[in-house]
Amino acid sequence: MNEKIKIKTYKKDFDYSYMLGAYGTIELIKTRPELIRAVYIHSGYKDKQNLQMLCTQANVPVCFEDSVFNKISQKENHYVFAVFKKFLCTINSNEPHIVLVNPSDMGNLGTIMRIAAGCNIHNIAIISPSADIWHPKAVRASMGALFKLDFQYFNEFEEYQTLFSKHDYFPFILNAKEILDLRRIPEIKLFSLIFGNEASGLDQRFNSIGTGIKIPQSNAVDSLNLSVAVGIGAFAFASVNGLI
Amino acid sequence: MNEKIKIKTYKKDFDYSYMLGAYGTIELIKTRPELIRAVYIHSGYKDKQNLQMLCTQANVPVCFEDSVFNKISQKENHYVFAVFKKFLCTINSNEPHIVLVNPSDMGNLGTIMRIAAGCNIHNIAIISPSADIWHPKAVRASMGALFKLDFQYFNEFEEYQTLFSKHDYFPFILNAKEILDLRRIPEIKLFSLIFGNEASGLDQRFNSIGTGIKIPQSNAVDSLNLSVAVGIGAFAFASVNGLI
Repeated sequence: MNEKIKIKTYKKDFDYSYMLGAYGTIELIKTRPELIRAVYIHSGYKDKQNLQMLCTQANVPVCFEDSVFNKISQKENHYVFAVFKKFLCTINSNEPHIVLVNPSDMGNLGTIMRIAAGCNIHNIAIISPSADIWHPKAVRASMGALFKLDFQYFNEFEEYQTLFSKHDYFPFILNAKEILDLRRIPEIKLFSLIFGNEASGLDQRFNSIGTGIKIPQSNAVDSLNLSVAVGIGAFAFASVNGLI
Repeated sequence: MNEKIKIKTYKKDFDYSYMLGAYGTIELIKTRPELIRAVYIHSGYKDKQNLQMLCTQANVPVCFEDSVFNKISQKENHYVFAVFKKFLCTINSNEPHIVLVNPSDMGNLGTIMRIAAGCNIHNIAIISPSADIWHPKAVRASMGALFKLDFQYFNEFEEYQTLFSKHDYFPFILNAKEILDLRRIPEIKLFSLIFGNEASGLDQRFNSIGTGIKIPQSNAVDSLNLSVAVGIGAFAFASVNGLI
């Protein structure tokens, strides 16, 4: 645990990442302390003593080194961050899924993890290419939800499809025939809610996969923001099917 | 129209703001050209000719001045932006409202305007203090929806309440007794969906105003992101009440 860590700007190929901010760091200490390599506390942080005690109780090393803080985040000021090990997980074939096809925005990825955890949908499939789920910006937007979910990357949607053929697929497509009717949400246990990329959505082949659903909306907008669309779809399916 | 504009980093007290990016600028030219003082096109922009033609047709001045681009946005590269005049509007007492009490994040403000326009809820009340709805970051996140809505600032919630006493109020509160039940969304024409600040939510006095609603969610998260909560609430009310 006490090996020397050299703090550098995050890169995708690191086997660790950073949780920025006191809120998320405390969440992480409480839920998955075994992942943490060290917690860094800035001299300007007000509640040093309590945080240090929490770390000691969880057997997490604490470092005081103000100079490293500007290496991990130029834009925002944080007084606390944790260095944590990335981990591998696989999704469960007996539970409902959210499937993200080529999500490109790290903030959206994090917000969607927060939605999924809030809706008790604990399994997220991500089809590459995709934004990096481990990037500190995604980790932070997830508000700790990343550590409460299972997620798995797939190279192609077909790879996902082969492994999870028992699920009922619901691709969210702007030109689908079925609309999301709140009075007629399917009652179903094993669903896959499938969402496309922020700019391009799902391509046309998804029209022949499962039951396409369109979230009705006015002509005043091109589409809803991806995480808002996932929020509406996931909430509707989770609430009608007793997950929340 | 041809008065000289000095391009500077945006400040709240300006009587104009910037729409960054070609997509939003084109939307603005098409919907509200009379607001535009000038469109700036960078020499690196590929579709110069078409955009210039669009501006000429709409009687909008075009400027080519690469050096001003880094003054309006250090973080992102844009090849096109519009300088537009801020305008005053008031909300309509015969239409449903979204009421935002002290929203603090500009990205959320913009995303919420996009949701409102998508749900055909065209009136937004904002209770101060609030993030600046005219900040280029909010304008950009709205993807042009800002120009299709009416919105109005109020100093206190009471000020709003006095003016709009016919509306049925639905404050979204984490500890409300009623949950958002998709099978029992109120059928109602004049509703006010009220949402609190990102960090602190609505304070306790909203428990005695109208019908408090809680969006059910697991214990794994503290709350949903504000714009996701607005998305779920607004979509549910708009869709059950025939707005979309």
